Amino acid sequence: MTHTAELIAVGTELLLGNIANTDAQMLSQGLSALGINVYYHTVVGDNPGRLRAAVELAKSRADLIVTTGGLGPTCDDLTKNVLAACFGKKLVHNPEAEARCRAFFQKIGREMTANNAQQFYLPEGSTVFQNDWGTAPGCAFEAEGVHVLMLPGPPRECSAMFRYRAAPYLRSLADGAIVSRTLKLFGIGESEMENQLREQMNAMTNPTLAPYAKEGECELRITAKAPTEAEARALIAPVEARLREQFGEKIYGADVSSLEEVVLERLKERGLTLGSAESCTGGLIAKRMTDLPGASAVFRGGVVSYATPVKHTVLGVPEAMLDAYGAVSAPVARAMAQGARRTLGSDLAVSTTGVAGPDSDERGNPVGLVYVALSAPEGTCVRELHAGTSRERVRTMAAHNAFDLVRRYLNGTLREKLS
Amino acid sequence: MTHTAELIAVGTELLLGNIANTDAQMLSQGLSALGINVYYHTVVGDNPGRLRAAVELAKSRADLIVTTGGLGPTCDDLTKNVLAACFGKKLVHNPEAEARCRAFFQKIGREMTANNAQQFYLPEGSTVFQNDWGTAPGCAFEAEGVHVLMLPGPPRECSAMFRYRAAPYLRSLADGAIVSRTLKLFGIGESEMENQLREQMNAMTNPTLAPYAKEGECELRITAKAPTEAEARALIAPVEARLREQFGEKIYGADVSSLEEVVLERLKERGLTLGSAESCTGGLIAKRMTDLPGASAVFRGGVVSYATPVKHTVLGVPEAMLDAYGAVSAPVARAMAQGARRTLGSDLAVSTTGVAGPDSDERGNPVGLVYVALSAPEGTCVRELHAGTSRERVRTMAAHNAFDLVRRYLNGTLREKLS
Repeated sequence: MTHTAELIAVGTELLLGNIANTDAQMLSQGLSALGINVYYHTVVGDNPGRLRAAVELAKSRADLIVTTGGLGPTCDDLTKNVLAACFGKKLVHNPEAEARCRAFFQKIGREMTANNAQQFYLPEGSTVFQNDWGTAPGCAFEAEGVHVLMLPGPPRECSAMFRYRAAPYLRSLADGAIVSRTLKLFGIGESEMENQLREQMNAMTNPTLAPYAKEGECELRITAKAPTEAEARALIAPVEARLREQFGEKIYGADVSSLEEVVLERLKERGLTLGSAESCTGGLIAKRMTDLPGASAVFRGGVVSYATPVKHTVLGVPEAMLDAYGAVSAPVARAMAQGARRTLGSDLAVSTTGVAGPDSDERGNPVGLVYVALSAPEGTCVRELHAGTSRERVRTMAAHNAFDLVRRYLNGTLREKLS
Repeated sequence: MTHTAELIAVGTELLLGNIANTDAQMLSQGLSALGINVYYHTVVGDNPGRLRAAVELAKSRADLIVTTGGLGPTCDDLTKNVLAACFGKKLVHNPEAEARCRAFFQKIGREMTANNAQQFYLPEGSTVFQNDWGTAPGCAFEAEGVHVLMLPGPPRECSAMFRYRAAPYLRSLADGAIVSRTLKLFGIGESEMENQLREQMNAMTNPTLAPYAKEGECELRITAKAPTEAEARALIAPVEARLREQFGEKIYGADVSSLEEVVLERLKERGLTLGSAESCTGGLIAKRMTDLPGASAVFRGGVVSYATPVKHTVLGVPEAMLDAYGAVSAPVARAMAQGARRTLGSDLAVSTTGVAGPDSDERGNPVGLVYVALSAPEGTCVRELHAGTSRERVRTMAAHNAFDLVRRYLNGTLREKLS
């Protein structure tokens, strides 16, 4: 099993800042979950000499090299040529790669241009990673004690090929199984979580525990190595149980992508629908729900009542209430959520009203003050947030909290009282 | 003036995939706009030996090294120590850095912990880049024919320090001025744009022209070098004029961030308001408008009519029309936009209805079919799109086209007929 990896990304567009090297992030996470340490990332342009220098250096200090990019038909097969040369290999024709590529073009109804032909040539002795998400196949070979994996650059293709081709290949090299499980937490800060776990983490060797922080959320990844997958899972189970005891309902899911994904699944299970009434989040909640395929089964829709009169005319918030308390207030959040349920005909509805900034509102409410409400058949509740000073963060936290209210309502762990 | 740069990012969190190296993207763009070529990006962990190896290598082949990260109080000043050692320099106390840091803690009302003290030490002979956005100062020095710049890792601090400290420093090293101007295009594909420009681009040396592609948009950056800024601008002007003639109304702005920013500015100038009725985009248009500070001056709000009945109950689309044409149809897009204007009381309104995927709709409309409408006092128009097969792309293109309709209406260059 390889243990020391380096990533080499090939692409002048990275050096020009056209795109960020998100492939490196995805691969670093994925390799780390396989128990493989990544010591360097390197980015080079579409330049054979500089790529060769980067590969020679990586070869001298790593036993796994993963390249991304430079495999497409317009790249003169830069990456394959250079890697083959560095390891003294020839490129040989791969009939299956050709058949796959021809079938791909047939499927999308376009003629295959001649420059695609170079994609059918791979370093001799390679394992081919067929590309079901584009045209350029990836591949892997082993030479001089180093494993080399070449993946396509477009993030969608790279990520799918890593998950479905490269990760299984790397697992097959291991003398045992490595299994990871990621717990997602909401309602606890990164530093607080790390403080509570530091001793525990340092004392652990197998499984290991790695914390990650995202905007307003945290992750805990448990990784275990064992002779078999079942044994690895058995090592993870008690650690997960202990963490669930420690963090309780703050853990909103395991191996899930987001709060809204959990909300969508729970709503489907219960056969309930959701609506939204958004002021400071301005459509972010609806956008996040509908980012998910299948949202139409549970999401009725939303009202973005950005201008105050729209809160009255579309959502039916009484004008007297808006005058008395102002748009950013708990009573208005409550009335907005109730109005959304009524207007949209949904079982549940969430609402947000707050000051996203950069300026405080006309009543002097500070940036970051947000009221988030949930309305259900049993009643309505409101949560008050102080969500920092950056516009983006305020909006993200408001949306997170709206989803958290729905999740807790559906789990029966809502701390707020419905009335 | 330095011409060959390498970026070195220091941080184990990058090697674990906790974050993407967006600093490298930002710096690559910024350096390229200053006429500096970036040949390598390297990421190393918080490890002195591996950082030293990366610096020694960079020193052997570049005349500008820019580091990011490893400057904070918890990093043992890794980056400054290693860089100073590589260039045979001592760290010396910088009183101004200390005064600034103490003032920062006073301002935020927290006690300065002892580990902050190491931030006051910088390599001898450094130019200090004061940090108005955090605590760790950056710095620059020149030794052995190489310029070294050290910037903090947090993207917000890194980006501000580059813009306000490092870029002016680099400009001061140049024997002339370098000026860039970026034209943004919508309604033309990357490859078509490149085909139209290839000969022109290859023939140009000063100014240079660099194309960038984003999801559904393109950019053209013109960069000129001259003894003075005014002379550089004078070199850019005729190139911009020629490009504007060539691409006409496809150019939607210069040095602007997005279509919605242009829409917001034009609406403000004209004193008009906007509303939205979104089906397939599910709130993305409202979200993008309200991402912008100041959106409340022109954006009334929106209706996300995700479920078909909401199109009738909230937006007033006739049920007979929904039955006859289906929700994904030009007449429904038109009625949604008209309904949004009426319901939200806005001067203009846009609407989207389409199939975002992954599956075709119940009437067999294919993924990617979208109708986008604009309703104005003079009438309503509809644009039909075939926006590919990825859910994210379909939604992005639908939103782009909605903003494009508003922009062209406000510019008087709408190709669609209002009726």
